Amino acid sequence: MVRWLELKKDTEYDDVVISSRIRLARNLTKYKFPNSMNSEEAKEISDIFIKAIKNIDENKEFTVVSLKNIDSIDRRVLMEEHLISPELIKNKDISYYIINEKNFLNLMINEEDHLRLQVLLPGFDLHQAFEIAKVTDNKLEENINFAFDKDFGYLTSCPTNTGTGMRASVMLHLPALKLGNYLQGIMDSLAKLGLTIRGVYGEGSDALGDMFQISNQRTLGFSEVEVIDKLENIAIKIIERERNIRRELLGQKSNYLKDKVYRALGTLKYARIISDREALKHLSFLRMGIDLGLYNRLNYNQITNLMLSVQKYNILKYKYSLKSFEEENVLRADYIRDFFEQEEIINE
Amino acid sequence: MVRWLELKKDTEYDDVVISSRIRLARNLTKYKFPNSMNSEEAKEISDIFIKAIKNIDENKEFTVVSLKNIDSIDRRVLMEEHLISPELIKNKDISYYIINEKNFLNLMINEEDHLRLQVLLPGFDLHQAFEIAKVTDNKLEENINFAFDKDFGYLTSCPTNTGTGMRASVMLHLPALKLGNYLQGIMDSLAKLGLTIRGVYGEGSDALGDMFQISNQRTLGFSEVEVIDKLENIAIKIIERERNIRRELLGQKSNYLKDKVYRALGTLKYARIISDREALKHLSFLRMGIDLGLYNRLNYNQITNLMLSVQKYNILKYKYSLKSFEEENVLRADYIRDFFEQEEIINE
Repeated sequence: MVRWLELKKDTEYDDVVISSRIRLARNLTKYKFPNSMNSEEAKEISDIFIKAIKNIDENKEFTVVSLKNIDSIDRRVLMEEHLISPELIKNKDISYYIINEKNFLNLMINEEDHLRLQVLLPGFDLHQAFEIAKVTDNKLEENINFAFDKDFGYLTSCPTNTGTGMRASVMLHLPALKLGNYLQGIMDSLAKLGLTIRGVYGEGSDALGDMFQISNQRTLGFSEVEVIDKLENIAIKIIERERNIRRELLGQKSNYLKDKVYRALGTLKYARIISDREALKHLSFLRMGIDLGLYNRLNYNQITNLMLSVQKYNILKYKYSLKSFEEENVLRADYIRDFFEQEEIINE
Repeated sequence: MVRWLELKKDTEYDDVVISSRIRLARNLTKYKFPNSMNSEEAKEISDIFIKAIKNIDENKEFTVVSLKNIDSIDRRVLMEEHLISPELIKNKDISYYIINEKNFLNLMINEEDHLRLQVLLPGFDLHQAFEIAKVTDNKLEENINFAFDKDFGYLTSCPTNTGTGMRASVMLHLPALKLGNYLQGIMDSLAKLGLTIRGVYGEGSDALGDMFQISNQRTLGFSEVEVIDKLENIAIKIIERERNIRRELLGQKSNYLKDKVYRALGTLKYARIISDREALKHLSFLRMGIDLGLYNRLNYNQITNLMLSVQKYNILKYKYSLKSFEEENVLRADYIRDFFEQEEIINE
């Protein structure tokens, strides 16, 4: 199982919420931003953070990894598991990540900013994620001077992050809102509130697996807690709307919905060749099927884990020496069938 | 199970051959052909055949049915089971069928000709079918004068049947030839030999379920046995070609083929809404899967039976009071799932 998912506790939001994330952008004074620094400066910066982490890492639970020292598949596996960003990979010659043992706390060094501190928790837990981020941030500040302006707050490479430097987000599973074409309307309403929603997998509004991320766009003029409260309230409204439409569909188009859920199950259990796109589509319906009482042999977290694991590089990692695109899809089908065989609870 | 399928014995051709059929066209002297007769003449003709059948029906195994006395769904069920022709339904106000208990021998009265005598046997057994047809035909001729010309043979409503009046056909399951686009070539070769091939289900070259019928086009200038021998020999060549291409596909595109077979199985077992078109497609792949050693929990005959039973009117008959097109597809999915649950042999 993807490590940060192991922290999952059952909550009342498991039918819709996948994860909560806080990212803080911080920069050192007296250094250029990563996009214009040379490799010596990059090294100096990483050394500063590695040293700072050693000072605060009492339980020695952090690992320091240089992006250029791991292979390209492993880099993309980390990205698929939401542990590192595309930007960190782009800067691989100068970038590092410093991650704790359970993978929920991660310092990306020389991403767009000198530091992107990320806390990623399964479930709906933005305040807890912020608490962890803030404690770590404060400890780092005991040893490091972050670029800070009394009027503007934390200074960042991109002005859209200046202020708190905080980006808070929740990942939601919204198959019914997607099916009913409600997302454009939600997108428009959120924009007016300074929030944004986007598909997690796939380009544009494609949103493979019906996974969406809601996050704040404003980082200036509001405290972190204000931003998080607002995001949380809006997320709850969207969760409730998603739930209502699921029930509505089950009431009005019961056979249609059952067909989608059970065909998904049949295909996942029997296919011998399957693309990531198709697998995510079916897993999305199956996840909704749990909520609607149509399926109960895997739980939400197992399906979320499977959705993460069937992505391209996770599959490539599962077994190297692939020769063709078709083999990736064959391997994915094998992986999924094995998963169902091993993990499904027999409760008939 | 469709009754005539119950006669099925295992043979070496079960991987491809579904059934063998002989149809003899016969007409009474002194009567107009059905398309220009009035209802009194039609009644006289049916009386002649009903009386003739009584004379030869020692075991009282024949049933006489007037098409206008059964409801329209039942008429179409008979057609879907290949027991009666569309023409017989078109003439329902004047047409009858006289069928034996096991349904392999059937006299259609006032179809395009006064009599269409049909023998339909499961498997590859044209000579046996012809033998049964000929014996019955001879017995009828003891009491009835059929229109016969010493130069032209039996006279028929449509000149293409004049001569022997015999149409012999075999129904073949040709998924690999269809998948590989070989059928147009076969069609052209057969035409040169006075034979024809056409899809059994669906319009034109659509051929739902990959079921094809090969039959003779010529009825003049050859004896019945010559025609049957030729048809049999050509059918064997096509059967062998189909077998070779199946093995070729399994060797060269093993995953592709397995994916088709197992997805078919998964969808049939899990779908809640399924059209006849889709069900036939999947059943076709599953039937081929038996031959390729990919599936063994139903046998050929059970799948053939299911292919017959999932047709529209068979499904409507399974439960009346349907309100919409969707309900037909829901009922079909229920029927198929029940079938698999009840009939699949557990041999894991």
